[in-house]
Amino acid sequence: MKLYYSPGACSLGIHVILEEIGKPFEAVAVSTRDGSNRKPEYLAINPKAKVPALQRDDGTVLTEWPVIAWWLAKANPMSNLIPVEFEAETRCLEWMDYLCGTVHPQGFTRMFRASNFARDAEDEARVVAQGKELAAGYLETIEKLWKGGTWLLPSGYSVADCALFFLEHWAAGRAGIELPPRLKAHHKAMKDRPAVERAMKREGISP
Amino acid sequence: MKLYYSPGACSLGIHVILEEIGKPFEAVAVSTRDGSNRKPEYLAINPKAKVPALQRDDGTVLTEWPVIAWWLAKANPMSNLIPVEFEAETRCLEWMDYLCGTVHPQGFTRMFRASNFARDAEDEARVVAQGKELAAGYLETIEKLWKGGTWLLPSGYSVADCALFFLEHWAAGRAGIELPPRLKAHHKAMKDRPAVERAMKREGISP
Ligand SMILES: N[C@@H](CCC(=O)N[C@@H](CS)C(=O)NCC(=O)O)C(=O)O
Ligand SMILES: N[C@@H](CCC(=O)N[C@@H](CS)C(=O)NCC(=O)O)C(=O)O
Repeated sequence: MKLYYSPGACSLGIHVILEEIGKPFEAVAVSTRDGSNRKPEYLAINPKAKVPALQRDDGTVLTEWPVIAWWLAKANPMSNLIPVEFEAETRCLEWMDYLCGTVHPQGFTRMFRASNFARDAEDEARVVAQGKELAAGYLETIEKLWKGGTWLLPSGYSVADCALFFLEHWAAGRAGIELPPRLKAHHKAMKDRPAVERAMKREGISP
Repeated sequence: MKLYYSPGACSLGIHVILEEIGKPFEAVAVSTRDGSNRKPEYLAINPKAKVPALQRDDGTVLTEWPVIAWWLAKANPMSNLIPVEFEAETRCLEWMDYLCGTVHPQGFTRMFRASNFARDAEDEARVVAQGKELAAGYLETIEKLWKGGTWLLPSGYSVADCALFFLEHWAAGRAGIELPPRLKAHHKAMKDRPAVERAMKREGISP
């Protein structure tokens, strides 16, 4: 298996999941900062020009964070990364969709890719501020909706925690957003996991 | 079961799925145009202030388009709305995530909610144009990645078609985007389905 990732991008969460599973995989860096994800070589792998992408052992490629996570967890049931019970699995998917389909693109992407939204260079500061406000608001919503203990789901650790982790990593780092209490504790608990340490080390980023 | 929808919004796709299943349900209009989705009554149902939301028979509420669709299809296996085979189910989820997590928010939302992106009223035309260009590009990507026949998946009609349908409805209608050939044929095939006719009629919108 081959994970296409960009250091510190949302693909970090999938990197953690692969480390949790513990089967051999190759990690291939495709920097979104220097535009490598838009080069023909990568478009041949993922025409959507995004990371993460997962090339599986039969050569086929899977895209979309929540779906890669769901597939990895279901294909590796011994790793216990997704609840077996239908309703709990549904809630796990619901969290991943909110985190990857709203919090990431509507909040953080505005901050980190302001030029894709702004009218001109001068307008970028406004977009960054709007993205930061939206992201902080979404994190507060997560805090309010929290139903688990240490982990997001009452049923325990799951791939949904790995989605929340990359957002916490962004918030506490580049974005400079103070995490609400439960998320702060969650972020710390994640950083204590050996799988998280290994993924961050391989990507060359500091916790 | 109760579907909270706004006429012609993305919730139309879930409305179609409920009509396909054919079990009794109640459809409750919450207009996003007049801001009803931000009123305390609705926030008590869905704190994320979005439609669709599905209140199930046990009173619990499910949010996020792809997850509501997946749950409805899995909970009603006799309706054949999602492939049973693991890899085909994975591809069904992958399509729904792309359609609802990228094409909708990055493309159409910019066009339809330009004020959430623009610097000021004068800047809105630029945002609309950018959204239209992005949306048209995503629709071309879908056309290129098409692997099915009439329907999106080679395995046949599924909830992924209902996601594509609301985007086609927007493109061909409000957005004024010419659909690529396969999507145009798909749009027509969808409009010919009695379930689609019933959902549109109940929402009071014309095909
Ligand atoms: N819908 C995709 C979005 C992934 C995404 O936005 N990835 C970012 C990195 S965090 C990316 O590849 N950006 C590159 C670009 O937009 O040029 C998913 O869920 O996997
Ligand atoms: N992530 C949500 C997004 C749903 C969404 O964006 N719905 C729109 C209607 S098409 C909405 O409720 N907009 C109201 C608003 O943002 O005020 C999902 O997949 O269900």
